[in-house]
Amino acid sequence: MSQSATGHEIENLIQLLARLPGLGPRSARRAALHLIKKKEALMTPLSSALNEAVESVVVCTTCGNIDTSDPCAMCCDPRRDKSTIIVVEDVSDLWALQRASVLNATYHVLGGTLSPLDGIGPDDLSIAALVDRVTQGDVKEVVIAVNATVEGQTTAHYITDQLDGLDVSISRLAHGVPVGGELDYLDEGTLSAAMRARTQF
Amino acid sequence: MSQSATGHEIENLIQLLARLPGLGPRSARRAALHLIKKKEALMTPLSSALNEAVESVVVCTTCGNIDTSDPCAMCCDPRRDKSTIIVVEDVSDLWALQRASVLNATYHVLGGTLSPLDGIGPDDLSIAALVDRVTQGDVKEVVIAVNATVEGQTTAHYITDQLDGLDVSISRLAHGVPVGGELDYLDEGTLSAAMRARTQF
Repeated sequence: MSQSATGHEIENLIQLLARLPGLGPRSARRAALHLIKKKEALMTPLSSALNEAVESVVVCTTCGNIDTSDPCAMCCDPRRDKSTIIVVEDVSDLWALQRASVLNATYHVLGGTLSPLDGIGPDDLSIAALVDRVTQGDVKEVVIAVNATVEGQTTAHYITDQLDGLDVSISRLAHGVPVGGELDYLDEGTLSAAMRARTQF
Repeated sequence: MSQSATGHEIENLIQLLARLPGLGPRSARRAALHLIKKKEALMTPLSSALNEAVESVVVCTTCGNIDTSDPCAMCCDPRRDKSTIIVVEDVSDLWALQRASVLNATYHVLGGTLSPLDGIGPDDLSIAALVDRVTQGDVKEVVIAVNATVEGQTTAHYITDQLDGLDVSISRLAHGVPVGGELDYLDEGTLSAAMRARTQF
């Protein structure tokens, strides 16, 4: 019945919006209505932004980052320390670390984690490319910044094995209490990790 | 810092997506990444869908519905009963009633509710146009299907006053227990309304 209430252009827009993560059928309808009501201010700019992105976005062949140039702006940036590589699962993790802006290093995006159950093996991730970068370049440290999940940690161990024997220091993110976190709400694993890694006051 | 991690095309896309209802900065980034990863399957179609919508979507001058033709498909549909007008606040309410598909009538979209605090008076809503439709057309019934909020009910009373003296029957949606609703979770207002309007078993 909703077909008869709207033209197929609107229906099509709603169905595409509903495929975005975080939007269900109801919120997709709300988003479509919002777009239609803000035609000049939002729908037209979003339409051109998508057009531009379709044409300009590429994956960096060096690090796997998403950017509008290849190699990406981060790989090209002369101010970045090329001797440190931060290994992340996904581009969203790279963005998160960039927002925290702690280490002026380059990145390497794996494209996922090892997951035998889902049929994702080492060849599906850019692990060989990472080993190549470490072998060929002047790399001193690899920081494995994968998620603290079982899959993430399995992947971290596999990468450590692959880099074994190469002249590079391998580190990983610290476990501990999140800043602002309350002990009462934390799991035992995090608490015991935080206790073991306690630092001098 | 996130500026340096992504080209400005991507940043621009994220900021526009973040202005959609239901999407915050974090989910807008997730949505943008999802779009970029599904370039062919999602980003390109969404881009063209927006383009098409920008060009084709118009507001019906008769009822205020959003469609690709004016008068809209619902106003033009000869199978719809033109003698009954369902008055709704917004196009989303029209869509909701269409999905329920209970009454084969035409609609009238007010474009909001009376709200003196927000400076929204009768002239900001299409109330005069509704009175015109009722005066000129062969309208037998006006169903006021506004939200059961204070503003909605105020608007309903105002419309009833405006239609006073015209040869038309005015009705409103029934109050009661939502289908599937549990009494324990309902407010007293709904329960007492449902009790007063109880029907024979």
